[in-house]
Amino acid sequence: MNKKPLILVTNDDGMFAPGLRALVEVARNLGEVVVVAPDSPQSGQGHAVTLSEPIRINAVDVFPEIDAYECSGTPVDCVKLAKHIVLKDRKIDLCISGINHGSNASVNILYSGTMSAAMEAALEGIKSIGFSLLDFSYTADFAPSQPYIKTLMKFVLNGGMQKGHLFNVNIPKLPLEEIRGIKVCRQAHGRWIEEFVEGTDPRGEKYYWLTGKFEVNDQGSDHDIWALENGYVSVVPSIHDLTNHAELDHLRQALETIKTPAS
Amino acid sequence: MNKKPLILVTNDDGMFAPGLRALVEVARNLGEVVVVAPDSPQSGQGHAVTLSEPIRINAVDVFPEIDAYECSGTPVDCVKLAKHIVLKDRKIDLCISGINHGSNASVNILYSGTMSAAMEAALEGIKSIGFSLLDFSYTADFAPSQPYIKTLMKFVLNGGMQKGHLFNVNIPKLPLEEIRGIKVCRQAHGRWIEEFVEGTDPRGEKYYWLTGKFEVNDQGSDHDIWALENGYVSVVPSIHDLTNHAELDHLRQALETIKTPAS
Repeated sequence: MNKKPLILVTNDDGMFAPGLRALVEVARNLGEVVVVAPDSPQSGQGHAVTLSEPIRINAVDVFPEIDAYECSGTPVDCVKLAKHIVLKDRKIDLCISGINHGSNASVNILYSGTMSAAMEAALEGIKSIGFSLLDFSYTADFAPSQPYIKTLMKFVLNGGMQKGHLFNVNIPKLPLEEIRGIKVCRQAHGRWIEEFVEGTDPRGEKYYWLTGKFEVNDQGSDHDIWALENGYVSVVPSIHDLTNHAELDHLRQALETIKTPAS
Repeated sequence: MNKKPLILVTNDDGMFAPGLRALVEVARNLGEVVVVAPDSPQSGQGHAVTLSEPIRINAVDVFPEIDAYECSGTPVDCVKLAKHIVLKDRKIDLCISGINHGSNASVNILYSGTMSAAMEAALEGIKSIGFSLLDFSYTADFAPSQPYIKTLMKFVLNGGMQKGHLFNVNIPKLPLEEIRGIKVCRQAHGRWIEEFVEGTDPRGEKYYWLTGKFEVNDQGSDHDIWALENGYVSVVPSIHDLTNHAELDHLRQALETIKTPAS
């Protein structure tokens, strides 16, 4: 008898984000779902973990017939607690994170709590996918995302991904009939152009508040931002190896031959 | 006339960490140094940025004849504020982060605030190096690290690194004469084996506190943990591209041919 796959669902927008609800709606038809999500918004938390204070976790009754827990920590903490405490090291067949309210394309994989949760699952040997919709609105329409999410989840549950890997999936803000399909992409070269809004608080102290816009420096047509701008769902297969392999040989010659400072 | 290079120094252990002081001591002989460091310890903050609250920055008189600023945000915030507010978009020739109290080898590049600050600099087009000593102690001896740090900084200042790149440098806890030199390495495969210490707080509420030990799953002798265990300073050339390039072709065939859910 086929056992239902165990699916862990998390996000960075918190337990009551509509994007999480939309993701649970898809997942509940594909397996046994357990939700462990932050008890407050955690956007931009990156791969932060809570080391210097305790973490709390509480069962909450949010989704009918689904075990859900809110956690006081970061998205990465949620995955760690889910695996070791909530699920007591049961085998998790898939971790899905999102649906994020807003894009996590390009280098935003590094800043995003949603993607860092997916990355943490991958580090723990759990196949994982992070989903983001290019719409920051609280009332965003997640319905067109759902069939693509189902397709990609089934692909991974059916053996389409290796352990330790993850997908960074971004979905354009379009009606279903205008989405042109899936593009498998590399991560676009881009960066945030920061601006800091300067202000003075009610006590007369100066402060800075981070804002900015994203700039793409990439002429290719094989990257995720190109795919999104052209109406595709972008899938970037990702991995936690940040080694710049192309530089290894050249640097070995340059650095390993330096006389050691001690000599 | 040769202008002195502009060197930004930051860390994640905070303005008063001895590792920061040891790094400033080296940097001050190589250029004009500006320090922007967190006003509190920020270990494990990863690539977190402060989005939902203001950030404060204050000049502090900590290092003789060196401009230093403490910042209420994360290590990544420090780099952003340094570039755009403190240095008003002057060209930064090198960003160095550390010296971290404790290893940032292997996948710890993702969890580490020290390495995320270096990564953020790289994302902003600033050449950067993160340094870590394999000694958590507050009274760690940073002296044997300093000649290696000087060597690597000079290498980068003399044109040895491309824009957008960074080095993850870890230094073994050894006397200078026992350090065998520099090894250029790939990032080791490894992961944290988590344990959560369960407790009850004074108000009777249950909590969890993250701990764990690091496990290396890598038989190679070309990775950073091997180098450190064998007495070398490890240098991992790193980059912010997390794309799993090896999987692109195979996944294009598998995923782009799926009938679109809309059809």
